[in-house]
Amino acid sequence: MIEKNLEKLLSGVYRKKITPQDAMEKLKVMMAEDIGVASVDHHRHARQGFPEVIYCAGKTEDEVAAIARTIIKTSGTLLATRANEKIYTRIRKIDKSAIFHPRSGAITVGGGKIKTGEALVISAGTSDMPVAEEAAVTADIMGSRVQTVHDVGVAGIHRLFSHMEKLESARVVVVVAGMDGALASVVGGLTSRPVIGVPTSVGYGAAMGGLSALLAMLNSCSSGVAVMNIDNGFGAGALAHKINTLPEKISR
Amino acid sequence: MIEKNLEKLLSGVYRKKITPQDAMEKLKVMMAEDIGVASVDHHRHARQGFPEVIYCAGKTEDEVAAIARTIIKTSGTLLATRANEKIYTRIRKIDKSAIFHPRSGAITVGGGKIKTGEALVISAGTSDMPVAEEAAVTADIMGSRVQTVHDVGVAGIHRLFSHMEKLESARVVVVVAGMDGALASVVGGLTSRPVIGVPTSVGYGAAMGGLSALLAMLNSCSSGVAVMNIDNGFGAGALAHKINTLPEKISR
Amino acid sequence: MIEKNLEKLLSGVYRKKITPQDAMEKLKVMMAEDIGVASVDHHRHARQGFPEVIYCAGKTEDEVAAIARTIIKTSGTLLATRANEKIYTRIRKIDKSAIFHPRSGAITVGGGKIKTGEALVISAGTSDMPVAEEAAVTADIMGSRVQTVHDVGVAGIHRLFSHMEKLESARVVVVVAGMDGALASVVGGLTSRPVIGVPTSVGYGAAMGGLSALLAMLNSCSSGVAVMNIDNGFGAGALAHKINTLPEKISR
Amino acid sequence: MIEKNLEKLLSGVYRKKITPQDAMEKLKVMMAEDIGVASVDHHRHARQGFPEVIYCAGKTEDEVAAIARTIIKTSGTLLATRANEKIYTRIRKIDKSAIFHPRSGAITVGGGKIKTGEALVISAGTSDMPVAEEAAVTADIMGSRVQTVHDVGVAGIHRLFSHMEKLESARVVVVVAGMDGALASVVGGLTSRPVIGVPTSVGYGAAMGGLSALLAMLNSCSSGVAVMNIDNGFGAGALAHKINTLPEKISR
Amino acid sequence: MIEKNLEKLLSGVYRKKITPQDAMEKLKVMMAEDIGVASVDHHRHARQGFPEVIYCAGKTEDEVAAIARTIIKTSGTLLATRANEKIYTRIRKIDKSAIFHPRSGAITVGGGKIKTGEALVISAGTSDMPVAEEAAVTADIMGSRVQTVHDVGVAGIHRLFSHMEKLESARVVVVVAGMDGALASVVGGLTSRPVIGVPTSVGYGAAMGGLSALLAMLNSCSSGVAVMNIDNGFGAGALAHKINTLPEKISR
Amino acid sequence: MIEKNLEKLLSGVYRKKITPQDAMEKLKVMMAEDIGVASVDHHRHARQGFPEVIYCAGKTEDEVAAIARTIIKTSGTLLATRANEKIYTRIRKIDKSAIFHPRSGAITVGGGKIKTGEALVISAGTSDMPVAEEAAVTADIMGSRVQTVHDVGVAGIHRLFSHMEKLESARVVVVVAGMDGALASVVGGLTSRPVIGVPTSVGYGAAMGGLSALLAMLNSCSSGVAVMNIDNGFGAGALAHKINTLPEKISR
Amino acid sequence: MIEKNLEKLLSGVYRKKITPQDAMEKLKVMMAEDIGVASVDHHRHARQGFPEVIYCAGKTEDEVAAIARTIIKTSGTLLATRANEKIYTRIRKIDKSAIFHPRSGAITVGGGKIKTGEALVISAGTSDMPVAEEAAVTADIMGSRVQTVHDVGVAGIHRLFSHMEKLESARVVVVVAGMDGALASVVGGLTSRPVIGVPTSVGYGAAMGGLSALLAMLNSCSSGVAVMNIDNGFGAGALAHKINTLPEKISR
Amino acid sequence: MIEKNLEKLLSGVYRKKITPQDAMEKLKVMMAEDIGVASVDHHRHARQGFPEVIYCAGKTEDEVAAIARTIIKTSGTLLATRANEKIYTRIRKIDKSAIFHPRSGAITVGGGKIKTGEALVISAGTSDMPVAEEAAVTADIMGSRVQTVHDVGVAGIHRLFSHMEKLESARVVVVVAGMDGALASVVGGLTSRPVIGVPTSVGYGAAMGGLSALLAMLNSCSSGVAVMNIDNGFGAGALAHKINTLPEKISR
Repeated sequence: MIEKNLEKLLSGVYRKKITPQDAMEKLKVMMAEDIGVASVDHHRHARQGFPEVIYCAGKTEDEVAAIARTIIKTSGTLLATRANEKIYTRIRKIDKSAIFHPRSGAITVGGGKIKTGEALVISAGTSDMPVAEEAAVTADIMGSRVQTVHDVGVAGIHRLFSHMEKLESARVVVVVAGMDGALASVVGGLTSRPVIGVPTSVGYGAAMGGLSALLAMLNSCSSGVAVMNIDNGFGAGALAHKINTLPEKISR
Repeated sequence: MIEKNLEKLLSGVYRKKITPQDAMEKLKVMMAEDIGVASVDHHRHARQGFPEVIYCAGKTEDEVAAIARTIIKTSGTLLATRANEKIYTRIRKIDKSAIFHPRSGAITVGGGKIKTGEALVISAGTSDMPVAEEAAVTADIMGSRVQTVHDVGVAGIHRLFSHMEKLESARVVVVVAGMDGALASVVGGLTSRPVIGVPTSVGYGAAMGGLSALLAMLNSCSSGVAVMNIDNGFGAGALAHKINTLPEKISR
Repeated sequence: MIEKNLEKLLSGVYRKKITPQDAMEKLKVMMAEDIGVASVDHHRHARQGFPEVIYCAGKTEDEVAAIARTIIKTSGTLLATRANEKIYTRIRKIDKSAIFHPRSGAITVGGGKIKTGEALVISAGTSDMPVAEEAAVTADIMGSRVQTVHDVGVAGIHRLFSHMEKLESARVVVVVAGMDGALASVVGGLTSRPVIGVPTSVGYGAAMGGLSALLAMLNSCSSGVAVMNIDNGFGAGALAHKINTLPEKISR
Repeated sequence: MIEKNLEKLLSGVYRKKITPQDAMEKLKVMMAEDIGVASVDHHRHARQGFPEVIYCAGKTEDEVAAIARTIIKTSGTLLATRANEKIYTRIRKIDKSAIFHPRSGAITVGGGKIKTGEALVISAGTSDMPVAEEAAVTADIMGSRVQTVHDVGVAGIHRLFSHMEKLESARVVVVVAGMDGALASVVGGLTSRPVIGVPTSVGYGAAMGGLSALLAMLNSCSSGVAVMNIDNGFGAGALAHKINTLPEKISR
Repeated sequence: MIEKNLEKLLSGVYRKKITPQDAMEKLKVMMAEDIGVASVDHHRHARQGFPEVIYCAGKTEDEVAAIARTIIKTSGTLLATRANEKIYTRIRKIDKSAIFHPRSGAITVGGGKIKTGEALVISAGTSDMPVAEEAAVTADIMGSRVQTVHDVGVAGIHRLFSHMEKLESARVVVVVAGMDGALASVVGGLTSRPVIGVPTSVGYGAAMGGLSALLAMLNSCSSGVAVMNIDNGFGAGALAHKINTLPEKISR
Repeated sequence: MIEKNLEKLLSGVYRKKITPQDAMEKLKVMMAEDIGVASVDHHRHARQGFPEVIYCAGKTEDEVAAIARTIIKTSGTLLATRANEKIYTRIRKIDKSAIFHPRSGAITVGGGKIKTGEALVISAGTSDMPVAEEAAVTADIMGSRVQTVHDVGVAGIHRLFSHMEKLESARVVVVVAGMDGALASVVGGLTSRPVIGVPTSVGYGAAMGGLSALLAMLNSCSSGVAVMNIDNGFGAGALAHKINTLPEKISR
Repeated sequence: MIEKNLEKLLSGVYRKKITPQDAMEKLKVMMAEDIGVASVDHHRHARQGFPEVIYCAGKTEDEVAAIARTIIKTSGTLLATRANEKIYTRIRKIDKSAIFHPRSGAITVGGGKIKTGEALVISAGTSDMPVAEEAAVTADIMGSRVQTVHDVGVAGIHRLFSHMEKLESARVVVVVAGMDGALASVVGGLTSRPVIGVPTSVGYGAAMGGLSALLAMLNSCSSGVAVMNIDNGFGAGALAHKINTLPEKISR
Repeated sequence: MIEKNLEKLLSGVYRKKITPQDAMEKLKVMMAEDIGVASVDHHRHARQGFPEVIYCAGKTEDEVAAIARTIIKTSGTLLATRANEKIYTRIRKIDKSAIFHPRSGAITVGGGKIKTGEALVISAGTSDMPVAEEAAVTADIMGSRVQTVHDVGVAGIHRLFSHMEKLESARVVVVVAGMDGALASVVGGLTSRPVIGVPTSVGYGAAMGGLSALLAMLNSCSSGVAVMNIDNGFGAGALAHKINTLPEKISR
């Protein structure tokens, strides 16, 4: 594509339809846009169809509000994570359609109507639900069709089995679990789909703020389980959506 | 499916075509096969089209050979990881077409001719290549089309940029890196595709056997990077293939 | 048991006393109840004779009260751990007989009158008493006869020796200790009974929130010491009760 | 018992049948034997009916042989753990009936014919079998009836379910698992019996020599799972036997 | 001593001055007091001339006051560590002579007038002074003559050298330092006296709550440095006093 | 220099212009000043031209104010780090020209007008800016010319490339990054100048308070990256200035 | 610079001195060379005047020899680290002037005759000398004038003071120390020059393979100490040379 | 002492008995010897009456032999730790009276005949004996009277009580224990003497190379326990001797 543009440009100069000065200005723009690196960024946003996400922790309400205003104006869509009621009040003043997801503290505005694929978010215990909600909200607003199954930890493994159908129909599964993180391994053994494990900081003592679940998931005896940072529901949701929206593969 | 079978069976009893004793035997089999759990396993292998993989570390040559013989006989395909020349000699006696991949110590027999999708395996340094090869061989024998880019660590980041095209065309990217694990973050920022980070135990001192790269990847500032266990090239390859072979999504 | 029910059912169909449709409905229920997994859960509760326990940390007063109401209604018995005075006030409104155990923050309602066996809970220092109380209250409400010995840490080991009689008569011993966790090893050497060590987060600096006691107990030079998570008095009490209530063994 | 002896002694002095000098000598012996502490040790061995166990790691063949000779002579029974073929050859010269258990490296001589109770040892993978064997051999030679179930890791959880009957009949369950240690949690949720988790050093990378499985088991979401040191099959077997041989409980 | 008492007792019985029944009661008391273990405790307190110390952290004001009242009544001396102004107010009501040491939060009552030996407490920075004060106050009230040198960290090592005289005259040296803990090594190289290192939790980031200083001191390149727990000024002071008050040695 | 002074002194004694008593007093002073150690300290301050820096964390406002007054009086220059608005109000009363840097909490008074060299401070994300500001303010007040580039983390690596010119012109580069710390490696690969990495505690979960970034930087695949403690912006700024102000090198 | 070249090129086309086809070829080269990123790499090598360094650990003799041959041919200079006698024999066959540094296992060929600046490498103990040698050899072959001071650990701190003159004259100081790493802090307090700390894996037990020294150095109470990875003598030497060869600063 | 020498010198110059040139030479020597720092080292060796100790690990036989020859020649006494039979053979050639202590690998030559005080070395298990021997040999050759008690771990605590007399008579106690390190706490509670804990690397799994015992000892519930590095028998022996040889204290 670039090559053709270059050819055109140089021909234009050669045929004196463009002055060297103008050509140089155009070249500069082309180089900036096309040095491979910079262009990627542009492509990426275009493809994902999703703007910057605001991680509210450590930001003031004013800061969040300012960023949110810009994003909403530009894209009509917003995802703000780790927010609270106060921030929500501020954002609602900017856009009345803003929704607050109280468990995870996520705030959303807009989001694609057309949902695609099928992402399943499974959590082990009720305490893991904030992280699970963050994952589900993220994948949903990005455009994935999301199902959720909560409170199916392995201490009562039959609870999980009553949801086998959902497991079967999912294209990608996010498993959210703290403590022993065992649910990721069990789910990984039950499905042939990609499994994204999200360890949570749920637990005490030797749970070590989620390290216990993190290590367990990294060492899952089920192959095909990939792991996110502790409590990183957003990352899991975003990755699940990426997998969900892969373009059709071509067999050659 | 089960429901229909049950209906048939009970009708048969009702119509005295089946005695209660025979019906009970059949019911037992149906329950065993269809309690959701057991059936899943069967379905899973069917879908993946790939038999058990032999992890050779800690197994004797005899043990590996025995398992390999069974697998090859059943499926005509074999993946054995962390093997060595001696094990290879043994397996070649079983199947002359066996191939030894010396960097990773993987042995393969057969493998689907028809390759699908596009998995890209990128490694940071030459010392990371054994793990990268394990990932590539795994995804390849399972049926993914695999490309590899080696030695593009961030210390000379321009080397990576000369492979932007491959990055653009990949459906899923495996990034293999030890030490600072920084390559996963950089690649994660350059592509909108799912990125699977594999930290390696390359390094010394504070690299702590791969912990340094593992933590760095878990904390990647690029969203959408999921992480495997240290040196787990096989897991990354298998997951990459899973993502690659997702059935077409349906927008509703 | 199931087999007999199945026989009955199928005979009923065979003798046309039950239509295939009705039989199928009944079979579905039986399968749900008896696919090995699900049934276990039911059996387990039946055998333990104890309902769900509420872990109050991280739950709102409303949430705890709602769950407590259901449990008390169903079973007449309640164990809520890590509660506080406020939660107690709420639960007292539900059941006036509720008791608050202030050191551990446990709340109990009811509990079997008939106590069995003999569980001994020993703690090293006064700061370990909350965890010891949680263990004792748990085993007690579940139906174990519980004795307690407090403040017999090894810094003054003669204190322990004045309780040798209790140690002799116990069927299972729970040892609760922080810091050096040494009491578990000493007790393990003095008794032939199973010893359950509970490290506590008592201590500072290199105690590392209980890690010091945890590691010490895992490495006890006395064989036969099993270890619970840090501060997990509830788990120790529940396990002690399980051991205490083992059915009579049969020598063959 | 002591009290009676004391009474006798003092009466003897009072009735001048024993001189104060002789009485004092006798008193010294009685005090030494009966100060609660020393006596316990004697009682303990009497009750357990099992002599000292030899931990061979770090001992020379000569050292092991010398200790083994004494133990066999005294008790007719021997358990030596972490031994090898060479040590076995030495011990066979002492007692021809010695048995070598090659997976765990345990050597046994004799052992009670009368087996009691029912201990179940479950292992997750084939690599966990050495530790599982050590646990099984230990409980067996001490006098427990032992059943074993191998290779039922949660990656294919249906395999475990085909052994539900054994799980139901066991009085105490030892679960041996490395990597994610998830099997302990699943088993803990399926049985109401005491579960002893033994993490193994099986795995690589973030398995950290068994730390991953250890932490997971300590944080098991199933209550009533107690944990042993990494690879400590002997300890688990000994504890399982202790639990198995608890005297009948008395309800008061 | 005991032997004499026994002789007396048995003679009394022999001479019928004591009935066997009374003798037995007395014997029981003697056994309880003198089984070697219990007696040690008595001896220990007698020798140290110092009663129990109150560690106030985690105790209520009421609890501290109650214990303090008993100790002061019995011994006229008190050491309470990690207290605060409120606790001080309470203790002052019990004994007006109570002194509050605000940096460390120690409270003292009484304390031997006659000081012995020479203990030197050195601290690296002003932030280490609370721990240093705790050490100094402890050794002082127990009866050691104490000198202190503050703020002589190795970043300006000449400051330490201006106190060489004190270092020369000390019988035992306590070094209190956080961060790099380097002062312990430097002092250990400058004196032939026993050095007790107390790492402090001073620092941030990789100081890891004192772990950095702890490890550095344990690995001191100067031999003869022993280490206490992080921030354990009390332990260091008590040990320094123990060393200071060793009875004269006898050369044989 | 000393030698000359000594010669003078001894000649004076020899020529009886100085009495031995006076000479001895002078000698003592000379020895104290010139034993190599003490003198260094003096030289150091002279060379650096910068007085003591106040680390405000853990100090009371009164303490900070007192130290600040002395320093300002002596030197006319002040750097106080980790301060807050209240401390600023106090210091402004001492010197009206005091400036508060709100992100880092640094307070400065004075500072050299003449700036030298070129130090570049680069930060990965907005959350890293407090540490980056601390580094920049420190190097600036000490006399370095400082440039800053913010928010150029590797997730969008093209952002960094638009600042290549600054990178080219810098004599020393400070890279401030949390999470994966990858920016240090990328910058280290792009410049031949010394790079000082400052890991920050930005992140959550497996970021472990900055440990993740710390390890990544220590294992940077780019040689020539040296690392400071987590969040230690001050140290990085001071070191950058030290490097910047190296005297001209002499080739021999 | 690029702009001028572009102007020339476009003018050439405009004036028909260059065909569009030729212009395009030239443009492609210019873009490749000048997109900021790629060019940097070229510039870097040019400035450093030093080719790739071979890290021999984990490479076969053949691999090292092959790389070495290329490097020597291109540049006449070689630095290979972590080599051994066998590798040396191979390299000597390529270039007879090759020198083997046996303590560190470094091999050098050539190296600038003209030495500049003054880098001082100080080591704490004799066991730290391999790392110190690696640092010294690296800085030397790159072109720095290097001095070394060995065995001046703080356990006998006066040994360091006899080298104050060298410390005074150095432009940059590398401190190599294991165990407590205290030497870095002491040296950091004695000099105003940049100090690069290299923790070594010397020590045992709680030295944790160098972690003890690493943490101590990161927490140095002397500001201006930057830290390298454990045992990373090469990195320290390279950084020291970078600092040494900074171009003259310009005061504006 | 120095002051007198200075007075003499200056008087000599004043009375023209010494030329200024000679005086200066003498002054230089005095300064070198007496600047406080250097002198200490001399004093220290004088007081300790013990020369440098050779830590053989990591040294070649030649290196050890060379150092040993010098030390024996100078002092007639030698302590070499972590040696082996080969090194012993070399040293025996230098001095026939050399003794090899095979458990610890220590080699001794000479050693004071006159023993003083009473140091007690207690070890928990037979595997701890190498470290215990190192401690005992060290204290002995330095001149302490040493007693040892082995294999008295807390798993059979009555064994320790049969040695109460030795505990009573010791002036300082070294406790050597691995695994749970509990013996240090028990001994610390039984004696009023200083206790030096030496954790050993005995154990496996969660013993983490001695970390378990180290943490337990640092958190000993008995005050007055100071801790050495893991396996550091030498350091404990040296410190025990230091404490043993404290000069008589003076009460003022």
